[in-house]
Amino acid sequence: MPGNSFGQLFRITTFGESHGDAIGVIVDGCPPGLVLSEKDIQPDLDRRKPGQSKITTARNEADTVHILSGVFNGKTTGTPIMLMAYNKDAKPSDYEKLKDLYRPSHADYTYELKYGIRDWRGSGRASARETLARVAAGAIAKKYLAEKCGMQFVSHVIQVGTIQSDIAMDKVTTKAIDASLVRCPDKAASDKMLKLIEQVRKEGDSVGGIIRGLIRNVPVGLGEPVFDKLPADLGKAMLSINAVKGFDIGSGFEGSAMFGSQHNDAFIASSLRRTKQSQIITKTNNSGGTLGGISTGQDIYFRVAFKPVASIALEQDTVTRSGKATKLKVEGRHDPCVLPRAVPIVDAMAALVIMDHYLRNKAQNG
Amino acid sequence: MPGNSFGQLFRITTFGESHGDAIGVIVDGCPPGLVLSEKDIQPDLDRRKPGQSKITTARNEADTVHILSGVFNGKTTGTPIMLMAYNKDAKPSDYEKLKDLYRPSHADYTYELKYGIRDWRGSGRASARETLARVAAGAIAKKYLAEKCGMQFVSHVIQVGTIQSDIAMDKVTTKAIDASLVRCPDKAASDKMLKLIEQVRKEGDSVGGIIRGLIRNVPVGLGEPVFDKLPADLGKAMLSINAVKGFDIGSGFEGSAMFGSQHNDAFIASSLRRTKQSQIITKTNNSGGTLGGISTGQDIYFRVAFKPVASIALEQDTVTRSGKATKLKVEGRHDPCVLPRAVPIVDAMAALVIMDHYLRNKAQNG
Amino acid sequence: MPGNSFGQLFRITTFGESHGDAIGVIVDGCPPGLVLSEKDIQPDLDRRKPGQSKITTARNEADTVHILSGVFNGKTTGTPIMLMAYNKDAKPSDYEKLKDLYRPSHADYTYELKYGIRDWRGSGRASARETLARVAAGAIAKKYLAEKCGMQFVSHVIQVGTIQSDIAMDKVTTKAIDASLVRCPDKAASDKMLKLIEQVRKEGDSVGGIIRGLIRNVPVGLGEPVFDKLPADLGKAMLSINAVKGFDIGSGFEGSAMFGSQHNDAFIASSLRRTKQSQIITKTNNSGGTLGGISTGQDIYFRVAFKPVASIALEQDTVTRSGKATKLKVEGRHDPCVLPRAVPIVDAMAALVIMDHYLRNKAQNG
Amino acid sequence: MPGNSFGQLFRITTFGESHGDAIGVIVDGCPPGLVLSEKDIQPDLDRRKPGQSKITTARNEADTVHILSGVFNGKTTGTPIMLMAYNKDAKPSDYEKLKDLYRPSHADYTYELKYGIRDWRGSGRASARETLARVAAGAIAKKYLAEKCGMQFVSHVIQVGTIQSDIAMDKVTTKAIDASLVRCPDKAASDKMLKLIEQVRKEGDSVGGIIRGLIRNVPVGLGEPVFDKLPADLGKAMLSINAVKGFDIGSGFEGSAMFGSQHNDAFIASSLRRTKQSQIITKTNNSGGTLGGISTGQDIYFRVAFKPVASIALEQDTVTRSGKATKLKVEGRHDPCVLPRAVPIVDAMAALVIMDHYLRNKAQNG
Repeated sequence: MPGNSFGQLFRITTFGESHGDAIGVIVDGCPPGLVLSEKDIQPDLDRRKPGQSKITTARNEADTVHILSGVFNGKTTGTPIMLMAYNKDAKPSDYEKLKDLYRPSHADYTYELKYGIRDWRGSGRASARETLARVAAGAIAKKYLAEKCGMQFVSHVIQVGTIQSDIAMDKVTTKAIDASLVRCPDKAASDKMLKLIEQVRKEGDSVGGIIRGLIRNVPVGLGEPVFDKLPADLGKAMLSINAVKGFDIGSGFEGSAMFGSQHNDAFIASSLRRTKQSQIITKTNNSGGTLGGISTGQDIYFRVAFKPVASIALEQDTVTRSGKATKLKVEGRHDPCVLPRAVPIVDAMAALVIMDHYLRNKAQNG
Repeated sequence: MPGNSFGQLFRITTFGESHGDAIGVIVDGCPPGLVLSEKDIQPDLDRRKPGQSKITTARNEADTVHILSGVFNGKTTGTPIMLMAYNKDAKPSDYEKLKDLYRPSHADYTYELKYGIRDWRGSGRASARETLARVAAGAIAKKYLAEKCGMQFVSHVIQVGTIQSDIAMDKVTTKAIDASLVRCPDKAASDKMLKLIEQVRKEGDSVGGIIRGLIRNVPVGLGEPVFDKLPADLGKAMLSINAVKGFDIGSGFEGSAMFGSQHNDAFIASSLRRTKQSQIITKTNNSGGTLGGISTGQDIYFRVAFKPVASIALEQDTVTRSGKATKLKVEGRHDPCVLPRAVPIVDAMAALVIMDHYLRNKAQNG
Repeated sequence: MPGNSFGQLFRITTFGESHGDAIGVIVDGCPPGLVLSEKDIQPDLDRRKPGQSKITTARNEADTVHILSGVFNGKTTGTPIMLMAYNKDAKPSDYEKLKDLYRPSHADYTYELKYGIRDWRGSGRASARETLARVAAGAIAKKYLAEKCGMQFVSHVIQVGTIQSDIAMDKVTTKAIDASLVRCPDKAASDKMLKLIEQVRKEGDSVGGIIRGLIRNVPVGLGEPVFDKLPADLGKAMLSINAVKGFDIGSGFEGSAMFGSQHNDAFIASSLRRTKQSQIITKTNNSGGTLGGISTGQDIYFRVAFKPVASIALEQDTVTRSGKATKLKVEGRHDPCVLPRAVPIVDAMAALVIMDHYLRNKAQNG
Repeated sequence: MPGNSFGQLFRITTFGESHGDAIGVIVDGCPPGLVLSEKDIQPDLDRRKPGQSKITTARNEADTVHILSGVFNGKTTGTPIMLMAYNKDAKPSDYEKLKDLYRPSHADYTYELKYGIRDWRGSGRASARETLARVAAGAIAKKYLAEKCGMQFVSHVIQVGTIQSDIAMDKVTTKAIDASLVRCPDKAASDKMLKLIEQVRKEGDSVGGIIRGLIRNVPVGLGEPVFDKLPADLGKAMLSINAVKGFDIGSGFEGSAMFGSQHNDAFIASSLRRTKQSQIITKTNNSGGTLGGISTGQDIYFRVAFKPVASIALEQDTVTRSGKATKLKVEGRHDPCVLPRAVPIVDAMAALVIMDHYLRNKAQNG
């Protein structure tokens, strides 16, 4: 399979370049009968869209989504759902002078060596603008899972540069996340992060950070043994997002320094029926909501590490396509920090993974 | 697709339980004409096998591999290669008394809730014994890639508990790795790690750690844009290994705290033709050998975080299948630390990912 | 994988309903560097489009194709190619009165039972209008294969109702095919077929027929042993076309009545180098150009059986959705015989199969 | 995906060569909790095995199946089921003298050109001995579907050479099929077929024929729109069987000569509740049990055309690997007619298709 599809039973295939005509996605395998209109999708796109605040790129796109198929009389029919948004504020001319350079830490070089040809208009297919399609498709998955299981996807920023938030997971609310321009639900940390991002922007630099993914009300039993473990598929989903360099789940890298006696999550009988299937829960959740690759019914949480945006206005060394040393300042419109806009992308990819495993589990064990 | 296959064009499908008859794998899609015999595979299995040193489980398995198909007159024929090893030292009786309990941080609970049935003999399919099959298949990929591109897979342990090695990547050799029982090529760190593991074993506890994956001589252009980025597929591969909780590539989590001006890898023209395709290299390699999901020709390096082994001899709280609180000591034969035996697994999974992308790239761009 | 994708390495995913907004397809995996514009695709769509002659449906659609992604500066970039045509002459009102009936031999009943919901506007997704997307995608495959190997796809009608043509395969030319409104290159037979179709249309009835697929200049070695044999994938491709009920290759059903001594194709050494790879050809070609599922280099030929169109203006018995007996005449705009318009669909599906196997073979054996 | 796997959710991957060590299959995705032992599988293998009657090859194989994984305490666990049979009566020496020839209408030539290497021992991977693995896997699907829906697979021979049976489908019973060495439930026709096969064997020749597949008690709603229509997947399954050259479903090729008014299947309300889902049936069943690619609940029937066996003892013209003309008599042990032994293969492949679609439908619409 070429690399533009994701998922097995709830399967998305995306298309489009940053400065081409449109960005879109075909969602195949959606269960029929789900009430669906553009109104269910647009809010997630609005969380991702450029120009939404003073700390995001100034590119001006409404990212208005159109449903072109798969919905009839307001409901999904079980056939492919095509979602598309036109590019309105494309400015390929911004990139004209970059077409014979390789921008550092961008995909210019690798695309050109791989394909022998490269769409140099704003990174073409390598642009994070492609994630618009993922967010649109993810909105359908989120809606279905919310209706079926009350599932919630509440990713949030917990680090920008060296500024960290240690907010407890049970304190995180969607409201608090969206009250912050940075999408960090911890007000004190958010304020510092905002300041840092503004400063970085002024300096023509960029900065990285970490998003914590959080999924509530996951049923027990999702995930496939061996290769398609839930953490493996979540990890792949996150590492497929532009600029992501790391992923861990539960105790993650920190857990590597621990002893088994500290790390193991004791099972206890809950007086409350926590899940439909079982009254058994774990006392701690170092596992991050999965055991043996399969969901335990506890909250799933994970971290996603983003590198600083590669496009910076500061002067950098690079080479031309023919290998000559040269200097470069990346002008144009760029985010100084992708984290705020990446939060809905993390939620969308998580929802796509869970939705797919929900259907896979139903097929074999439903 | 059910979850027991991995790869698209070089595709493996594994089977077998820890205390069943055999563990094996079908490797489909191998190019024809590769000289292959059991001798090419056994050494990797020997690096993974139990009982190989005083710090591994005492289970006594030769893990002798048999090639049952796909090789004729000493060469691969292009048809499925079946590799199998019989389980010789299975002791299901060790697990008889655990069959009505859920061992903490094991997959007992999730398998039972998912399937309604569970093979309780040594974790059944959830056992890391399944990775024998991956190592066997990976040996074929490694051999092919070594012959075609001189590729080298030299994973090594860099952390056990809180003991870290800061050995430089260019100092790492296979010889140094295998001179250490821990598979840490840094002698001083290795000695401390060994001591820690021995102490942990004595105490009936276990400990986690980190393996650094390292791949040399990767050609430019491997990896697919968007979902099947090389880091995404490597991440999935690693996170599918038992006990793995985290993965990062290049600067990874550390890079999240950096500024773009620090992090970007400047392109420079190399006087040496580093790769067949190009004389352009990067001054630094924070990217870890990929840009836009595609290999740059620089070394690929990544970290894999392992949690401490869940099976410990210390007393733990848990519940029975019917939800009653009880106490548990996991006896039987277990590794106090999986890291030393996990090194060949990391290499194998990395080789399977690269091999698959090598063929995928050849199909579209070759 | 849901059912709206076809192919593994050259992979298409289609969307759209007969009376929805648009019909389209994402083509993923196309090799980069192929010169491509709408002009390469439109001629094939024109061969398929409605209203092209007096013996096709009167629905008036230009079926103008738009390339929305994947092409830059006139060449494919290796990223997904999105092709789309808007529905212009949709008349859902024609179907309003059919929405509570099940039309005989249509998919109304099965879609409704399967999904619990059904887009009744002109069969929705079940309409053969979906094949527009296949023809568009197939045009890319055809262009690539023509440039690489000089491959030719020259399907043609050999039977309508009981009227048969026995034209020899080596006499068939694209010119002769398109000189016939029926797309039968045998003038005498074509005239009779035309007459029959006109009569059938007048009577409000419909008629079936057979298309012979023919592929020239196929290289030796395409097709995968065991499940993905070339005849198996060609058969699936053809049987996935609306109204197709049968497929055979080479001697096919007729060959079942033969003895081995009659049927076997003797190998002979050719004085002419027939293929790049070999000078060996077969004296006869009962095999239809494949042995063991793999192409021999001889012409591939096969037959595709189409049932008569289910929409007829004559009165029929049927039931309402609630199971009450009723009478029905299907009005609206329908083809009396799909064969003429199905010829480019057969070519397109054949090209998609061959293209996919071309890349698959390159990956493993190239 | 390489070509040795079949199915998406109930997925089989086969391995093994005719004269190698073993033939086997991994069945992945089987629902847990199915009671299963070798006794459920062996009877189907016995129907396929060589040496079962005077009209089959004399190769003496018990084809004893072993379950090596995936079953615990007599039930499937949801993990991969490995099934294997050792080759006992391999005689590679029979083929020694053929190794430098291309046998007419065999895969020798195409395998060698494709892979550059060929296992010449009894056709290697191209041998129909591979179908042993399919029959073993199919037995599991058949058992599951019988338990869940009372489904029955009752393929039977309807033609050998020019001898045809016109037995009505509702007269066909498993008992009558197996009472005939030819597996034709029509006694009079069977006797003539038997005589013909015996004569053909005596003459050192071979003969083709037709099997009719028949599936009873299929639920409404199986099959996916567009590419993975049930007839398309059944067709692919059948055309992937060795020696198969044709497939049609329902009225098939014959229906191509009909008018819509003759061919359409009128819907009627049944006084009997024919299926769980609906009381609506069709008066006739020219559609062969599917509409729009989806099962209607009526019997599914189709025809599978087999060419005469390519191995004949009569002298034939061929060439050596270096292209020199030579003569050849294929000695060794061969079936004069594969039809009797192919009946369980047709059933198995049909069951694998239906099982896969049963799970796929459950995932999306269950």
